Amino acid sequence: MNLTQPLHKALIERPQAEALACGGRRTSWSAFVDRVARLAAVLQQLGLQPGDRVGMLGMNSDHYVVYFHAVWWAGGVINPVNMRWSAAEVAYSLDDCDTRILLVDGHFHAVAAGLRTAAGQGMHSRSLQQLVHWGDGPAPDGFVDGPALVAQATPVDDARRSGDDLAAVMYTGGTTGRPKGVMLSQANLASNVLSANQAATRPVDSVGINCAPMFHVGGMALALQLIQRLCRQVILPGFDELPVLQAIADERGSEIFLVPTMLKRLVEHPQFGSFDTSCMQLVLYGASPIDETLLARARQVLPAAGFCQLYGMTELSPVVTALPAWCHVPGQPADLQRQRLRSVGRAVPIAEVRIVDADDQPVPPGTVGEIVVRGPLVMQGYWGQPEQTAQALRGGWMHTGDGGRMDADGFFYVVDRLKDMIVSGGENVYSAEVENAITQLPQVGMAAVIGVPDDRWGERVHAVVVLRPGAVLTTAELQAHCRTLIAGYKCPRSVEFREALPLSAAGKVLKVDLRAPFWAGKSRNVN
Amino acid sequence: MNLTQPLHKALIERPQAEALACGGRRTSWSAFVDRVARLAAVLQQLGLQPGDRVGMLGMNSDHYVVYFHAVWWAGGVINPVNMRWSAAEVAYSLDDCDTRILLVDGHFHAVAAGLRTAAGQGMHSRSLQQLVHWGDGPAPDGFVDGPALVAQATPVDDARRSGDDLAAVMYTGGTTGRPKGVMLSQANLASNVLSANQAATRPVDSVGINCAPMFHVGGMALALQLIQRLCRQVILPGFDELPVLQAIADERGSEIFLVPTMLKRLVEHPQFGSFDTSCMQLVLYGASPIDETLLARARQVLPAAGFCQLYGMTELSPVVTALPAWCHVPGQPADLQRQRLRSVGRAVPIAEVRIVDADDQPVPPGTVGEIVVRGPLVMQGYWGQPEQTAQALRGGWMHTGDGGRMDADGFFYVVDRLKDMIVSGGENVYSAEVENAITQLPQVGMAAVIGVPDDRWGERVHAVVVLRPGAVLTTAELQAHCRTLIAGYKCPRSVEFREALPLSAAGKVLKVDLRAPFWAGKSRNVN
Repeated sequence: MNLTQPLHKALIERPQAEALACGGRRTSWSAFVDRVARLAAVLQQLGLQPGDRVGMLGMNSDHYVVYFHAVWWAGGVINPVNMRWSAAEVAYSLDDCDTRILLVDGHFHAVAAGLRTAAGQGMHSRSLQQLVHWGDGPAPDGFVDGPALVAQATPVDDARRSGDDLAAVMYTGGTTGRPKGVMLSQANLASNVLSANQAATRPVDSVGINCAPMFHVGGMALALQLIQRLCRQVILPGFDELPVLQAIADERGSEIFLVPTMLKRLVEHPQFGSFDTSCMQLVLYGASPIDETLLARARQVLPAAGFCQLYGMTELSPVVTALPAWCHVPGQPADLQRQRLRSVGRAVPIAEVRIVDADDQPVPPGTVGEIVVRGPLVMQGYWGQPEQTAQALRGGWMHTGDGGRMDADGFFYVVDRLKDMIVSGGENVYSAEVENAITQLPQVGMAAVIGVPDDRWGERVHAVVVLRPGAVLTTAELQAHCRTLIAGYKCPRSVEFREALPLSAAGKVLKVDLRAPFWAGKSRNVN
Repeated sequence: MNLTQPLHKALIERPQAEALACGGRRTSWSAFVDRVARLAAVLQQLGLQPGDRVGMLGMNSDHYVVYFHAVWWAGGVINPVNMRWSAAEVAYSLDDCDTRILLVDGHFHAVAAGLRTAAGQGMHSRSLQQLVHWGDGPAPDGFVDGPALVAQATPVDDARRSGDDLAAVMYTGGTTGRPKGVMLSQANLASNVLSANQAATRPVDSVGINCAPMFHVGGMALALQLIQRLCRQVILPGFDELPVLQAIADERGSEIFLVPTMLKRLVEHPQFGSFDTSCMQLVLYGASPIDETLLARARQVLPAAGFCQLYGMTELSPVVTALPAWCHVPGQPADLQRQRLRSVGRAVPIAEVRIVDADDQPVPPGTVGEIVVRGPLVMQGYWGQPEQTAQALRGGWMHTGDGGRMDADGFFYVVDRLKDMIVSGGENVYSAEVENAITQLPQVGMAAVIGVPDDRWGERVHAVVVLRPGAVLTTAELQAHCRTLIAGYKCPRSVEFREALPLSAAGKVLKVDLRAPFWAGKSRNVN
């Protein structure tokens, strides 16, 4: 199995059809493949050997998609760089896997230049040898002019790496400790694309709107899932309500990936009604479940759309479970449907997913434990970290670090990141359970629950809450509500009301940021 | 990728749900897996080593599906035996790939016993060492009692063969020349299952009716496609109208694979209306296109069903293209829809399909040539036939031997088996084109066109025609009709009216049988 195969198919089946639309630029499949084969030639001229890593630091664009495929075509391995990182973190991730060539778009020329020149504080990359301008506008001094070389290059043949050949090193875990380089093979990613396309029924000849960050495995996967089906995709630099609405309406977008917080911003936007979004047929979402109020609103304003949740992680290439469209519409008993909306769905075809206890023994349905996964989607390991790899993959199963349970029908529920579990007075508290209780209050927009230090209980349950515009709620009312739904020790001992929550590029609440002020100078007992 | 993975998934997700129904016997997923792990133990006790071939000679049954998975679980390779073959052909196929263990159900005990005892005329298998009774009823003398050993066996662990490990040797081409053993790997079959399940949108929690012969790659693939989705399947010994209708009604069957000739017999059966078939949601068909009259009738009597054509061959694991449901319903211009119904559809996700000329050079859309295929679905080769393998796979592409063309939208059309092409007066005549012309006559039920020897033209176009009940048609009327549609040299010079056409187990017209009497003692110029 091989990630460049769709390009060869497209050359046969629809060479003149449009593949990519970005910032007014439209690229046919044949022009896309030509650009890939030329950039591959340039990378080889710059010294790329089979298996070498090539980084990219940029906003989403058609250039980013060309970068993925050109590196594979040339025989290399992608290493997309998290654009939210500090220069020190970027340097660490490049040096860790010895990335010598870095492609950079105009937004990050200054950051990238600093990687080569800055001294001290870990901001200087030792491995970096070539900075290549790859984006719009001119190449600055000190950068190889990628577009100019590509224009003159002679296209090379596809190296056709496949199967267990390494395809990507993607760094994760930057929010706690040192980032780890997740090694994914050609077959890891290609089999996951097939499996995810099967698990979520897709519109025929879909037009994808891609606004999820491509340095993240989710945005990359969406791009690959569309390309595998030879569907057109419209690429936006990032998520912003008005450009997304404009793109859906202008390009007749039919498929999109969003996290629920983005979907909420989209459907509640005051100008939503002035765009024709009737073409939208599939809203894929991830990172968290969708709440009933949001789903009802979204179904009302996007009446032709199905909704499908995907749950995954970088180490799993990434899609592991899918909650299909039929779980989002009436037709089941209301209680069951409500319960299912809290689920991440069923395992995708290539994933064996089970719940184990601390001794790695499977537990019965309904019991909470750690979610572990086996199958061709499991990563090859962490770059240069044999011990962490062995620990994560012990017994042949990827240990996700997520707490969860499975019901009798094979639906999985993520209870919490195990490392986010709060231990209060010796009792385990799963934040998601508390958050679910709080968000049932009509006054509440979002809620995040964390453990904060407590002299008596070790940790105490602390809630950070964003109210809906105009809503009023007291701490006592919130606590009283929670006590009607969950055990007393799980109810928040303290509550903080805020205007907004800090979100990661992938739209997840950055609990590490919420916790930081409480834990400064203290050590927290996490695994 | 691995063909036993769905069994591990089922044990986690739905152990108590029903997996197989056959002849009144119902088997849960956990009982299915238990039986697989026990039969694997018995095969190992009988001497099976990793990579050894194990044959099966039997009608369709739940035992057949257990056989597939038990051989893989034990580390072996399946070699399903064509039950229509003569003893000499069976012996040849066993000996060719050194199959030492043969499972046999009650229908074939006598044939199998003869393989061991018969002398001369190639009917004695030299490789065969163990005959294992594997089916209903008692084990006869000289047979290992499979069910009795399985009842006492201790289940073994899955050998978890995967990727390029050999999974199957399947013999094809028995109708002309020596059969060839097509070698398919675990990844060949597993990636094809994923790709075929994606290409044809499947009902949620489908119930499959499996009446296609499992010794054939098509019936096996349907079983694997259902198992991969953890869907229940109802297995019938073979196709017969009343049992199939009964199974659909009693078991709420929602998915079935048929060849159009079977579909026709089903929907035109006088008792069709007395069965509740409203549950049928997906009719997969293959081996030939569906004619408009049949489709209209089928859509009328199966109003909830979508229709999807699959085209494939053993060497391609097997599904290569799919004509999706939307091509079978109004919504396109009538001319386009009529044209599309003659197509085998678009390439499935893992197949690069192109049309080449005699020098293996790609030809433009609309031009007829040979259909060649590349991708992870392509076989490993023909067992013990390096030269035929190199010829079939030259340039890295599987040469199907089928003539075809692609239209500007990437839809493929099979014009004819190249070796069935008729060369008359130096002109190439593709039988399918002539057959399409003939079957547009309302009087015609079926038609097969072959080349027969002709002193003047080398070959002449000869039609064998089955009229609809009560219909009347003369040779002159048929010829006059054809001349309105196709060039004169393509029109049948001679016509023969018959009650029925000889069909293979897979439902294809056996043209080799039609041709035989004309060509006795003569040599035909085929590639």
